[in-house]
Amino acid sequence: MATKYVYFFGGGKAEGRAGMKELLGGKGANLAEMANIGLPVPAGFTVTTEVCTLYYKNKSKLPAELNKQVAENMKKLEKVMGHIFGDPTNPQLVSIRSGARASMPGMMETILNAGLTSTTIPGMIAKTNNPRFVYDAYRRLIMMYSDVVMEKAAGIEPAEGQGIRQQLEHLMAAMKKARGVEKDTDLTGDDLKTLCDQFKAKVIEVLGKPFPDRAEDQLWGSIAAVFQSWNGRRAIEYRRIEKIPDEWGTAVTVQAMVFGNMGDTSATGVGFSRDPATGRKVFYGEWLPNAQGEDVVAGIRTPLPVNEAGKSEHTQHLVSLETAMPVAYKQLNDIQKKLEQHYRDMLDLEFTIEDTRLWMLQCRVGKRTGVAAVKMAVDMCNEKLITTAEAVKRINPDSLIQCLLPMVDPKAERENKPLAKGLPAGPGGAAGVVVFTADEAARRGKELKEKVILVRAETSPEDVHGMHAAQAILTGKGGMTSHAALVARGWGKCCIVGCAALEIDMHHKVMKVGGREIHEGEWITLNGTAGAIYAGKLPLVDPDLENNKDVGQLMKWIDTFRTLGVRTNADTPKDAAKALTFGAAGIGLFRTEHMFYGEGADQPLFLLRKMIASSGVAERRAALDQLFPFMKADMKATMLAMQGHPVTIRLLDPPLHEFVPHDPAMLAELAQSLGISLEQLNKRADGLRESNPMMGHRGVRLGITYPEVTEYQVRAILESAAELAADKAVKNVLPEIMIPVTVAKTELDDQKAIIDRVAAEVKAKYGLKTFDYMIGTMIEIPRACLVADKMAETAEFFSFGTNDLTQMSFGFSRDDIGSFLPDYLKKKLLPEDPFQTVDKDGVGKLIKMGIEGGRSTRPNLKIGICGEHGGDYDSVKFCHKVGMNYVSCSPFRVPIARLAAAHAALEDAAAAKGKKPGKKKVAKKAKKPVAKKAVKKATKKGKKK
Amino acid sequence: MATKYVYFFGGGKAEGRAGMKELLGGKGANLAEMANIGLPVPAGFTVTTEVCTLYYKNKSKLPAELNKQVAENMKKLEKVMGHIFGDPTNPQLVSIRSGARASMPGMMETILNAGLTSTTIPGMIAKTNNPRFVYDAYRRLIMMYSDVVMEKAAGIEPAEGQGIRQQLEHLMAAMKKARGVEKDTDLTGDDLKTLCDQFKAKVIEVLGKPFPDRAEDQLWGSIAAVFQSWNGRRAIEYRRIEKIPDEWGTAVTVQAMVFGNMGDTSATGVGFSRDPATGRKVFYGEWLPNAQGEDVVAGIRTPLPVNEAGKSEHTQHLVSLETAMPVAYKQLNDIQKKLEQHYRDMLDLEFTIEDTRLWMLQCRVGKRTGVAAVKMAVDMCNEKLITTAEAVKRINPDSLIQCLLPMVDPKAERENKPLAKGLPAGPGGAAGVVVFTADEAARRGKELKEKVILVRAETSPEDVHGMHAAQAILTGKGGMTSHAALVARGWGKCCIVGCAALEIDMHHKVMKVGGREIHEGEWITLNGTAGAIYAGKLPLVDPDLENNKDVGQLMKWIDTFRTLGVRTNADTPKDAAKALTFGAAGIGLFRTEHMFYGEGADQPLFLLRKMIASSGVAERRAALDQLFPFMKADMKATMLAMQGHPVTIRLLDPPLHEFVPHDPAMLAELAQSLGISLEQLNKRADGLRESNPMMGHRGVRLGITYPEVTEYQVRAILESAAELAADKAVKNVLPEIMIPVTVAKTELDDQKAIIDRVAAEVKAKYGLKTFDYMIGTMIEIPRACLVADKMAETAEFFSFGTNDLTQMSFGFSRDDIGSFLPDYLKKKLLPEDPFQTVDKDGVGKLIKMGIEGGRSTRPNLKIGICGEHGGDYDSVKFCHKVGMNYVSCSPFRVPIARLAAAHAALEDAAAAKGKKPGKKKVAKKAKKPVAKKAVKKATKKGKKK
Repeated sequence: MATKYVYFFGGGKAEGRAGMKELLGGKGANLAEMANIGLPVPAGFTVTTEVCTLYYKNKSKLPAELNKQVAENMKKLEKVMGHIFGDPTNPQLVSIRSGARASMPGMMETILNAGLTSTTIPGMIAKTNNPRFVYDAYRRLIMMYSDVVMEKAAGIEPAEGQGIRQQLEHLMAAMKKARGVEKDTDLTGDDLKTLCDQFKAKVIEVLGKPFPDRAEDQLWGSIAAVFQSWNGRRAIEYRRIEKIPDEWGTAVTVQAMVFGNMGDTSATGVGFSRDPATGRKVFYGEWLPNAQGEDVVAGIRTPLPVNEAGKSEHTQHLVSLETAMPVAYKQLNDIQKKLEQHYRDMLDLEFTIEDTRLWMLQCRVGKRTGVAAVKMAVDMCNEKLITTAEAVKRINPDSLIQCLLPMVDPKAERENKPLAKGLPAGPGGAAGVVVFTADEAARRGKELKEKVILVRAETSPEDVHGMHAAQAILTGKGGMTSHAALVARGWGKCCIVGCAALEIDMHHKVMKVGGREIHEGEWITLNGTAGAIYAGKLPLVDPDLENNKDVGQLMKWIDTFRTLGVRTNADTPKDAAKALTFGAAGIGLFRTEHMFYGEGADQPLFLLRKMIASSGVAERRAALDQLFPFMKADMKATMLAMQGHPVTIRLLDPPLHEFVPHDPAMLAELAQSLGISLEQLNKRADGLRESNPMMGHRGVRLGITYPEVTEYQVRAILESAAELAADKAVKNVLPEIMIPVTVAKTELDDQKAIIDRVAAEVKAKYGLKTFDYMIGTMIEIPRACLVADKMAETAEFFSFGTNDLTQMSFGFSRDDIGSFLPDYLKKKLLPEDPFQTVDKDGVGKLIKMGIEGGRSTRPNLKIGICGEHGGDYDSVKFCHKVGMNYVSCSPFRVPIARLAAAHAALEDAAAAKGKKPGKKKVAKKAKKPVAKKAVKKATKKGKKK
Repeated sequence: MATKYVYFFGGGKAEGRAGMKELLGGKGANLAEMANIGLPVPAGFTVTTEVCTLYYKNKSKLPAELNKQVAENMKKLEKVMGHIFGDPTNPQLVSIRSGARASMPGMMETILNAGLTSTTIPGMIAKTNNPRFVYDAYRRLIMMYSDVVMEKAAGIEPAEGQGIRQQLEHLMAAMKKARGVEKDTDLTGDDLKTLCDQFKAKVIEVLGKPFPDRAEDQLWGSIAAVFQSWNGRRAIEYRRIEKIPDEWGTAVTVQAMVFGNMGDTSATGVGFSRDPATGRKVFYGEWLPNAQGEDVVAGIRTPLPVNEAGKSEHTQHLVSLETAMPVAYKQLNDIQKKLEQHYRDMLDLEFTIEDTRLWMLQCRVGKRTGVAAVKMAVDMCNEKLITTAEAVKRINPDSLIQCLLPMVDPKAERENKPLAKGLPAGPGGAAGVVVFTADEAARRGKELKEKVILVRAETSPEDVHGMHAAQAILTGKGGMTSHAALVARGWGKCCIVGCAALEIDMHHKVMKVGGREIHEGEWITLNGTAGAIYAGKLPLVDPDLENNKDVGQLMKWIDTFRTLGVRTNADTPKDAAKALTFGAAGIGLFRTEHMFYGEGADQPLFLLRKMIASSGVAERRAALDQLFPFMKADMKATMLAMQGHPVTIRLLDPPLHEFVPHDPAMLAELAQSLGISLEQLNKRADGLRESNPMMGHRGVRLGITYPEVTEYQVRAILESAAELAADKAVKNVLPEIMIPVTVAKTELDDQKAIIDRVAAEVKAKYGLKTFDYMIGTMIEIPRACLVADKMAETAEFFSFGTNDLTQMSFGFSRDDIGSFLPDYLKKKLLPEDPFQTVDKDGVGKLIKMGIEGGRSTRPNLKIGICGEHGGDYDSVKFCHKVGMNYVSCSPFRVPIARLAAAHAALEDAAAAKGKKPGKKKVAKKAKKPVAKKAVKKATKKGKKK
């Protein structure tokens, strides 16, 4: 039997269903689902993603069998819709759209109105009695098709603004000028007919081929173009950012056209079953009368609110669909309710009203801001639509991160008048310098690491790289479903759209807003949650998490599922206290060296420098004597703040040379304080300089060569603990002393001797009967993993330092990867930056060896992680999987770690039930060798630019 | 039953035997063996090394049971010898000596003449009728005992030259002055008697205690002092250098004294059954009439040759024992022959003739120079005394290294007249600046890395650290068995002793020799093989290996046993050719970057710099075009030189910044050549600078970011191979292209694509029908070992780069370890420098994983090693053990690698027979937790100094 490449839907039933996204793409699968549950869906069929795979495998050729299957399904479509594709008297027009498993808005091609030819146009005119409509549809077809099919097929890469589409637009502008009109809609049917002729002549002139006049040719050209667009530069870039596998491919859905632009009884729109920005339970949408769908999404005309409930202060004066077309609205409202109950999630809908008749063109689970995601999950759980486990599973880390986003300081907002207001498309606050092009945003934002805000009249998929590099996006046009809004929301980026008060002068790189001129490079601040734009750089503050009840509720549910502990990395009492409010269960990493601050010669930083520049034990002890009270005060205050939660204190870790000042004045002061000449000091500093400091004299190596440095630190820790215990200020004080950069048990023994000696002295000094402390080690050098069984003979706990472990395992100096890692990621030599997410194949194997080795000696060995990975979602899940007891991360990332831990536990539970979670299964299946060459080719192209 | 702590020997039998070295020490075991085979050995007994262990375990207390066992054995001794210890009328004197498992000449204490007291002295005088002899023995006892027992027990650490011994020596000097005599022997019995009284008074004055006047007290004090000396500073230092475990401990042998200083019918001497310097089969020894053993060893009197055959041009005029005491000599000569047949090895003997009666005091397998070791092994094998396997096993790597030692260029020797000649105590040539103290030798030699030659009147164990740091040792006094000669020979160090022409003025730091004054810091050159001393710095050349027939024979035998291949690291055709003569079977590492040399702007180094400083592909290709002919010429010539042996060529490896010049003139020239400003060039150079270059942009990372760099190198390699194949200049040309610094299979795939493409082009260009090449990778980053199974999917061979693998596994930057590794070794946190010998526990585990992973994918994967470890004896054995196919090392080390490979294979064979080689077994057993605290204590002491 031949492989089934095409799946039909329409007439109240479908061959596919929502669960078949992998094969039919999101769009195709959901259209089938809607047809199945009896919603009004224009008939159509979906060519599967497998065909896309074959297309790239067979050097951009479609499989032969496809012809027959498409023909058969076109017949079915014609039967359901009652028109015939390419028929002179009763012609059927179709759209051809892409649809990947994951939504990639605007990244791939769409052709509308296919089927209009010199043969069918008369029939269409006869049928609609609306020549203007038909020629408008025809000129749109020519514009789209010549651009996305013909120009690409011809292999032409026109200069910016020189493409066929722009040339046709020039013709149209000329026509409008000649007719003395301003809007497209003011052109008459005859004007448009003339324009179509001009378009076709221009196509021959520029592209060397006539515009295809057979409906079949238009259909097949479009199908191929959609497949081709999967590997367009924009799509590849988008996938890279969104981590969508190249192998997935896209499906193509061919669907009967319905027209929202057939006059005032027609309309088109999009909607969300709940507010995607806030999560509020209200049907929320936008519509345009007498328009095609692209007009809404492209943001060219500012759309109207679908209903009264969804109106905001900005849209109060506009006409809603509810008011304009109450019958169609009621039907639409019923449908969105039905769909939400059916899908048990918030949905993003596209609809068209053709001459009062409502058609559903698309439905999919809607993108939402993080804040909205949390609110919806909590609400739906309270509504009994989903379980707590589902609510937790539904929150992805980015959503939660968005809830933790900084916002503009409310005090500063009260004191500053906004320049203008726009639509709050992406929440959070952001400040940055204004830039007007995506390239400039990328250059300054990515390369120069400046904070920039990209300001555009509207954004297009061409701007994605700049949008990604920007802190925030501000557009003058477009609505909440415009390209800018969709993309920004997807990334959880601050974004304001449709700020009509904005006048942008691209030529002079300046914008006028609120009576002010703001030039490129000047600071502005956005409140994306409120849509307010401010001049200058306003302070940002962290979000008021404690008062966000939804987040609070969600975090409680999260904690019911997770088994992995979450601690925090904190170096000050303030951080420690903050982390407690984020739900940290202790400090996993207190970095001694971070306590060295201050500017004066009596401040810790200076004293540390003095210690480092000391020569000989006596000088070093003198400096340590001065440092001691500071160390002790900070440690004691931190332990007090943690109120009996465990505190792991790491002994001095970094290469000493890091602390040697470069400033001549500081050097002079230091020399004076040490009573040596500047020359002598410089000589000592030179002696500390290293070729590869990351692998030099640091960590435990300092404690071994300078035992007194260990001694003073340990004394500070243990005296703090002893005093807190003696004062009964904190119950169960249990300092965990952590020795960094170790490679052998002997190092631990060497340091343990010092620690035990000091502990005995402290115990005696404070007259304590019992005095508990733990000695453990960082596991951050490959050898430590390899001899973990031995290390655990002395170490009472392990904490994986995956930053260093990744550096040494890869031989990648974190400070130097800039010259090659980008190429590695671009060429896919590595699946991801191993400093962001634990490299499971390599570093992960070492971690597993370390855990197995350690526990083989000490079965109850407490094991955690305290590198940057401890707050990375995927890495935390890995930590759960390999059996760590806890992760430790920066306070801000504690909630993410808790979420990841809960997800990992839920996946365990699902696996235990024999049902692997869907996503994983899919991802595995997708890893077939697909479209490799094409990807390579595309990558190369990208590189040349 | 009580543990047996004491083993008796004497009277033609013994409780111990030669195989019990572990328990009885070398001296005790061999004395027992000699007694067993009926040789004349003064009776005695040995206190076992276990007692030493207990002594340190029990805080320097001897086990209670020892008392009884010593008393019983003393009775036996008395019975055999016919005198009684401590008896007033018929007193027995004894010596108390140390004896560890391995010889540690002069490192521990010895007490002679114990048993002389106010009670026994009259008896001794009556018995010997020689008061002068008795008082001389007594004054020696007081000097030794007060120094090594009493002063140490009192815990006094006198300043240099202020010890009790020196104070007693001052008294003796004063006595000589008062009597107007020069030599000790000119003092009369009365003088000596007076002196003994003065000595005893001084002992009370300085040490606060009287000299013990009970024989028992002297005996026990001496036994404890010997045990105590195991952890003396000198002994510890010596063990560190010789890698002797601290846990072994020493035995103590108490033996009846016999006297070589009882007049002209008495004598003492040492001998070797073959010449220890050359290996020549001739009984070789030195003796002194009327002397005690220490006189020979200390080198105070220049000794005489034992026989005529052993005379050299320097000793021609001296009286031999053979002539002076023919009967005793004949007996001695028979004994040495018997012992050699019995031990099947060359022996080092000590004898004393007391009033014409010969006594054997010691025998042990003799130390020998490397050259002698090889000659003896080959000779003994030819004499059927040992098998070829034994001959091979008997050669340790240091011996072979000595055969490969540089020597003074013979041409230079012809042209320069020696300043003087001395005894050739340690072979080879050396040049260095003169220093006169051990401390200065250590400072300049070790710290400043200068080449120094230590010049002393005579050396003592106090000088060991300086001797170790020196290139060579030159003494004015002493013979071939003096301290300097023994120690230097053990280390294979160039050494000349007994150069009587030398006058050293320590005060002015100058020596007079051959009519010249040579000040500290001036260069001299020694030919240790001939004993010639030259002024100035003469050139050294490598030894004439090809003409050393013994080495050639041995290497042939070696190759019959080994299974591990040995290749060489060579970067030039010259090195390649040389390595072939050393027995290399191919090149395991040709470093592309080493071919960049020359000074002019048309030379490779400049062109490489130009390539590195290029910006963009076009500039880089232009520079590569210029470089290409040089690369190709070198590669082709090397492949030609190797005549079909495999050649592994590594692509560019080091961080590019290494090649950026610092010289302003060179920078200016470079900028000009690139057509850019100096400022621009500096900016580019800054861009190449890295925080941790060892983990930066290097190796395959260069090939990935600059594919053209790979392309040109590969083209040079493959065109060379193609041309050699086309010209039929070499059969079976098979270049092995090796990709460095890899961490993932994807990197190999990326580079393989380039290599395969270039190969196809080259194949076409030269019209070849077949064209073979291999693609492999260095395994030098930990991750590569962890994902070796994947790497082997693409790589056709692995070569472990253990230098980098050690760096990354330990996180030890090789350039920066100077600040901490010495402390690690001193504190024994690491058993040895992991850059010298593969760290088996950590790095070794990674290597095993790498091999297992690689072979799991590709069972016949060819695996080698090309780091420095490839020429390290222990590491090569490890490589054999883990199943590598070959090691690769510098040409000079190829013979060592071959030897190690043969030893490893012989050990395998022994293990297969169920007989583990003795050494290993012993070493394992020795790793009991012994004397730890004492060691720590001693280490601390050492540090304080």
